[in-house]
Amino acid sequence: MDSIKYLLNENQIPQFWYNIVPDLPKPLAPVLHPGTLQPIGPDDLAPLFPMALIAQEVSQEPQIEIPEEVRDVYKQWRPSPLFRARRLEKALDTPAKIYYKYEGVSPAGSHKPNTAVPQAYYNKQEGTKRLSTETGAGQWGSSLAMACAFFGIECKVYMVKVSYNQKPYRRALMETFGASVTASPSMETESGKAILAQNPDSTGSLGIAISEAVEVAAKDPNTKYALGSVLNHVLLHQTVIGLETIEQMKMADAEPDVIVGCTGGGSNFAGISFPYIGRNLKGQSKARIVAVEPSACPSLTKGKFAYDFGDTSHLTPLVKMHTLGSVFVPPGFHAGGLRYHGMAPLVSHVMDLGLIEAVSVQQLDAFAAGVQFARAEGIVPAPEANHAVAGAINEALKCKSEGVGRTILFNLCGHGHFDMQSYIDYAAGKLVNYEYPAEEIAAALAGLPNV
Amino acid sequence: MDSIKYLLNENQIPQFWYNIVPDLPKPLAPVLHPGTLQPIGPDDLAPLFPMALIAQEVSQEPQIEIPEEVRDVYKQWRPSPLFRARRLEKALDTPAKIYYKYEGVSPAGSHKPNTAVPQAYYNKQEGTKRLSTETGAGQWGSSLAMACAFFGIECKVYMVKVSYNQKPYRRALMETFGASVTASPSMETESGKAILAQNPDSTGSLGIAISEAVEVAAKDPNTKYALGSVLNHVLLHQTVIGLETIEQMKMADAEPDVIVGCTGGGSNFAGISFPYIGRNLKGQSKARIVAVEPSACPSLTKGKFAYDFGDTSHLTPLVKMHTLGSVFVPPGFHAGGLRYHGMAPLVSHVMDLGLIEAVSVQQLDAFAAGVQFARAEGIVPAPEANHAVAGAINEALKCKSEGVGRTILFNLCGHGHFDMQSYIDYAAGKLVNYEYPAEEIAAALAGLPNV
Repeated sequence: MDSIKYLLNENQIPQFWYNIVPDLPKPLAPVLHPGTLQPIGPDDLAPLFPMALIAQEVSQEPQIEIPEEVRDVYKQWRPSPLFRARRLEKALDTPAKIYYKYEGVSPAGSHKPNTAVPQAYYNKQEGTKRLSTETGAGQWGSSLAMACAFFGIECKVYMVKVSYNQKPYRRALMETFGASVTASPSMETESGKAILAQNPDSTGSLGIAISEAVEVAAKDPNTKYALGSVLNHVLLHQTVIGLETIEQMKMADAEPDVIVGCTGGGSNFAGISFPYIGRNLKGQSKARIVAVEPSACPSLTKGKFAYDFGDTSHLTPLVKMHTLGSVFVPPGFHAGGLRYHGMAPLVSHVMDLGLIEAVSVQQLDAFAAGVQFARAEGIVPAPEANHAVAGAINEALKCKSEGVGRTILFNLCGHGHFDMQSYIDYAAGKLVNYEYPAEEIAAALAGLPNV
Repeated sequence: MDSIKYLLNENQIPQFWYNIVPDLPKPLAPVLHPGTLQPIGPDDLAPLFPMALIAQEVSQEPQIEIPEEVRDVYKQWRPSPLFRARRLEKALDTPAKIYYKYEGVSPAGSHKPNTAVPQAYYNKQEGTKRLSTETGAGQWGSSLAMACAFFGIECKVYMVKVSYNQKPYRRALMETFGASVTASPSMETESGKAILAQNPDSTGSLGIAISEAVEVAAKDPNTKYALGSVLNHVLLHQTVIGLETIEQMKMADAEPDVIVGCTGGGSNFAGISFPYIGRNLKGQSKARIVAVEPSACPSLTKGKFAYDFGDTSHLTPLVKMHTLGSVFVPPGFHAGGLRYHGMAPLVSHVMDLGLIEAVSVQQLDAFAAGVQFARAEGIVPAPEANHAVAGAINEALKCKSEGVGRTILFNLCGHGHFDMQSYIDYAAGKLVNYEYPAEEIAAALAGLPNV
């Protein structure tokens, strides 16, 4: 049998991250100060982020060098493997060729360490003693906890309460790495207290947890804030995924016709797709690029492309993005990493420019796809990644019905080892699909800032 | 910084398993029929195993070819990485160089698929419809469940009750792969019923679960039995670990002075060490080889080298091994994979020949080592693997106190993603050390068969 795994050497870890911004046909809308509604400058962000990351956030350079210290840590799991899913192809009886890049080989089990490591590194360089952050499913929180352990920085994580309760093992992982974890909304912050005063039973959301983490960093000069998705510099760091994949697809002598990624805040999707969008824009390829989001939190397919806050308590600047409204709290479905009201401004921008497509998937379809994938390929995907698997399987079945053997590439952004409760619930018939929460979203969108 | 990861290419997956038997200075004691006390022949084993595995069990060939179909599945995670633990060395402030082979990259998270895949393959070749097996921690059960899913065989797992309750996620993994899982002792078998009649609260043991799985296979012509450790053919399959490591240590331009592995049934230990014992015997190396076992189940350090049954209900043949007595039920400590009364006959034999050493480690020391390792290296080890980590750290600290920079190699046989409850319990101070269960073991040893 032909190869099923395409590996690069350690010295083929990219030396630069790819910055899509200068390649785009239209500039990104500026980030606005929530008070003045004027574009913000580096100084406005300085209380939250080290200057190196702020510089990356606004960089127009086509590529940014990856520090050697970061590449040294990347070496532990990078380059990550690209697989040909031959057994899945056979199970689907499809003429499609399915490839997947697997980011679950990182010690934290997902793509998140790709940005956690440089964020911890730059903070360490600039003297940060403590990082505060939020986490949904816990993929991001555990990645930052690990990176902080490597660089000797304290780590404080606000974990969305529904995930905190659903995923005790993910919390234990963060604590094993030495982080302090609090369920959000909490009584530790003004933001948390205000939410709990309104709704003592709040299950939390990424928007709320971001408010808490930002508040803590803004108030303490020794603490900075780290975000696991959405921001330009985070998406930048994730481009190592796509850059490696381009080389690996060359090894496989294949060119993707369709590229699929799941979208919550947008970081793993950007990681696999931005380098390919760059190639599309330069006429080097013409892959369709498909974002897959949960039906219960459909920012790209049902949201509004407008200025909104990144958090629920309105502590962040305003960014132009596809949003369901910053006060929208998504239902407690199991893909906690996708429970975000907004979408990365860069992903929203390429969607607005028509460079990508978006579809939504129901929870039960996502888990059915994940179980089918696990039985064929051995890897149990994270609930978030199940959305990408479902998207890829749908494309493969389309190939089957059309009798066309397209090449499908998707990013398997993480494994589900810490999410087995969701598989237990799925097998027990306890998971449900969610109706499109039309009224809540309409109400949340009605409150969009008037910009 | 120098490399921290040593990777081989897919075409460097070994083409042959290494059989230590013909290299040993003294032959292995024969396996005896429990009734006649005469050496058994292939026909005695035929109800339980396919002929290809029986042939491997008694083979005198120095190497046995790995079928191409097995190597194709191995490709998904093999060759596995060898790491230099630079951050751990720094944290320990030791002059030692610490290397670890990491088997947790397999989809099931441990070294167990190295033998699950060939066992499922040979069974499929010979028409087996269903495999029955036991599992302690669940590493083996989930590996066999995965391999059965790949080859289209039904899988029935008897899971030691204490692990069944401690590790619901591991059980969910097996069920996600499509296996049927029952807590052992169960009312499904005569063996289970007999144990429960004696002790309705039995937490089970590997010895009991083996009885149940063997009984099911012996009674059903469509079902064969698969064992995840102990037997010669299982240890044979695991030698891919050491064979790859030898090549990777050459890449690192290093030769191990000490090789450490944890021992339960002996399979991961044999996997890393047997190819090195072969080199030692041929005068190509002179590494010390150290088996690390739990203080609460110390077969190598406190057991008797004698003929005993492999299971509690005495359905298996008699093998000569280090044993604590087949009716000894180890306390419910968290390294479920090490809770076995006996030791692989081949590992016992090399111990008896003075080719290896053995030490025991207490549960709390093992977890302290595991947490230190996780914070330095990012990987959270399985509770079983924590024993190897503790053994390696002890060797590294010895180097420090002696001011000698030895090269230490250990096998990190699996990750702890499905064992986080044990880390939660450890952090909460709920784990304890166990006194050496002297009386229970003396009583169990008093009942050894009179051979």
